[in-house]
Amino acid sequence: MNNPVIGKNCNIASTSKINENVIIEDNVIIGEFCVIGFNPKNNIKKKLIIKKNSIINSHTNIYLGTEIGENNIIGHNVLIREETILGKNVQIGSFSDLEGYCSIDDFSKLHSCVHVGQHSKIMSYVYIFPYVVLTNDPIPPSDIRQGVIIEPFSIICTRSTVLPGIKIGFSSFIGANSLVNKDVEPEMIGSGNPFRIKGNISNIKIPKTQDNAYPWVGRFNKDYPSDIKDIFENFRKKYLNS
Amino acid sequence: MNNPVIGKNCNIASTSKINENVIIEDNVIIGEFCVIGFNPKNNIKKKLIIKKNSIINSHTNIYLGTEIGENNIIGHNVLIREETILGKNVQIGSFSDLEGYCSIDDFSKLHSCVHVGQHSKIMSYVYIFPYVVLTNDPIPPSDIRQGVIIEPFSIICTRSTVLPGIKIGFSSFIGANSLVNKDVEPEMIGSGNPFRIKGNISNIKIPKTQDNAYPWVGRFNKDYPSDIKDIFENFRKKYLNS
Amino acid sequence: MNNPVIGKNCNIASTSKINENVIIEDNVIIGEFCVIGFNPKNNIKKKLIIKKNSIINSHTNIYLGTEIGENNIIGHNVLIREETILGKNVQIGSFSDLEGYCSIDDFSKLHSCVHVGQHSKIMSYVYIFPYVVLTNDPIPPSDIRQGVIIEPFSIICTRSTVLPGIKIGFSSFIGANSLVNKDVEPEMIGSGNPFRIKGNISNIKIPKTQDNAYPWVGRFNKDYPSDIKDIFENFRKKYLNS
Repeated sequence: MNNPVIGKNCNIASTSKINENVIIEDNVIIGEFCVIGFNPKNNIKKKLIIKKNSIINSHTNIYLGTEIGENNIIGHNVLIREETILGKNVQIGSFSDLEGYCSIDDFSKLHSCVHVGQHSKIMSYVYIFPYVVLTNDPIPPSDIRQGVIIEPFSIICTRSTVLPGIKIGFSSFIGANSLVNKDVEPEMIGSGNPFRIKGNISNIKIPKTQDNAYPWVGRFNKDYPSDIKDIFENFRKKYLNS
Repeated sequence: MNNPVIGKNCNIASTSKINENVIIEDNVIIGEFCVIGFNPKNNIKKKLIIKKNSIINSHTNIYLGTEIGENNIIGHNVLIREETILGKNVQIGSFSDLEGYCSIDDFSKLHSCVHVGQHSKIMSYVYIFPYVVLTNDPIPPSDIRQGVIIEPFSIICTRSTVLPGIKIGFSSFIGANSLVNKDVEPEMIGSGNPFRIKGNISNIKIPKTQDNAYPWVGRFNKDYPSDIKDIFENFRKKYLNS
Repeated sequence: MNNPVIGKNCNIASTSKINENVIIEDNVIIGEFCVIGFNPKNNIKKKLIIKKNSIINSHTNIYLGTEIGENNIIGHNVLIREETILGKNVQIGSFSDLEGYCSIDDFSKLHSCVHVGQHSKIMSYVYIFPYVVLTNDPIPPSDIRQGVIIEPFSIICTRSTVLPGIKIGFSSFIGANSLVNKDVEPEMIGSGNPFRIKGNISNIKIPKTQDNAYPWVGRFNKDYPSDIKDIFENFRKKYLNS
């Protein structure tokens, strides 16, 4: 049993509950009515680490055994279970439910109400919109867990469901309300239920200019590193040659 | 910095957090564990006003810079961001997420888990059912915001998604699980994914009597003004001639 | 007015609000920031009973006039309104919304974000996955309530919507993202929007072995009684001969 360790210059609401075995680094903000370091059966041995400069908004519950990276923004009413590893500059929208045993890499952003099943692997610079569900059980209910893999720079639009074990390739685009039941190759568009591949991402145009809308790198920079174009090109070489 | 101003005859749970720059009018009820007047980056200059006779239920978070009208009922676990303008007698269901910079006019009702994207414009006497999503970004992620417009007396059934910039016309009916990707004319039925117009609302019958089920005015009066038929007819003249 | 009655060996977070007319039996655990026994208009006369060995997780709100059975596990941020009757060993996932006047029988499990409309009747050993919606109003908005009936051992996969008054038969399987608009016979598969019956549940195979995946009894036992096979066979005789 260890008392929580709290860094310098933190702003932690007095109404929030900070449990044992929690490490909070410098400049972290924690909103009202949060539970930080929940250990439901007292059997999680690992600590919860919240790295520097991160913000946890009100009514959020984070279990022990998890790692919140630097510069994260976690919304209101979020649930994050044990063995969730968030990279740096990750954003998790309000009401999202991260079921644990999953990872979300640097600079990925989840909008509100995203459900991340166990063993999901969301790589970096991914953007996931509201009410997307990442499933994991191919014959529910069962003990089989086949996590979804989402490669970097992919976009999953609102309310899509990704079935167990599916891989969504680098910089691909999944339309709203899709039921993704097959792997998607890099830089492809997929949508619908039944799900169909609709060609290369270059088919989607910016309405006003008719320039290519995707990849989005270069036309949208909010909260990304200044060298994001170079980062994208390096990832592209890696994933398109693999 | 101004202390909150609280009217007469209010019932505010002692566990709730009422921040500075909040104005609460008479007869307002605020449930347990609410955050009223949240100002995440201390850059919202406008006050939060909660007008008389309104009820805010437990675990709800309302940002500064917003206006809650008279006689509103706000559910549990609701999130309402800045620059949300709610008219009078509005109802917002539990777990709903109003992203701000949006308006919901008098007597409109949102059931639980409704997601209202920024720049949505929900006019009066609209009824929106659970898990409806109003989107706003035509090429996500981007800085473009094309809000949805919903004209008076329209019905949007459970789990429908409305794509950016769509206008849903006066007294129209959107079926469950639709992906609305084109404008809907007044008094029309639309449904499905792919989305189809299915004729005039007079095609939907009350199961027992085979009378027309829509418009619903006249057969459903709960919490509406006694002269709702006249109100409806006046709106109808305005919107069908425009 | 009666003070709450709290049994032996309970663990109730000091931040939670336990109202009058609540009966909590032995060995109950209640997490942080819960509201237990909410009575919004002071017109619910019945008590709230939480039976022995049940767990209520953080940020959950349970109204008066409801019954939580023995050995239940209720998630975080759950809303349970009045006149909800939960049997024994029921599990309710986080962010679920039980609208009241409904029942969920022994050993049924709801995953997170399930919406249970009023007058729904979920029988025993049912499994419902995230974001399923059980509706009840055939001509919304109206005062008509036609609850959904789900017979024992049925599976409803993620994000399916069940329309008002539909009966889902014994041990049937509803695929992800379905819009269930007709009754489903026992032991049948149904899926899609438009919804189609896709044959007997024996058509779904376990990927590795090609054995039948359904009924799931016998291959998945977590938290079920040791004689679940006998229970299943007894239910089967009853429901297939009816």
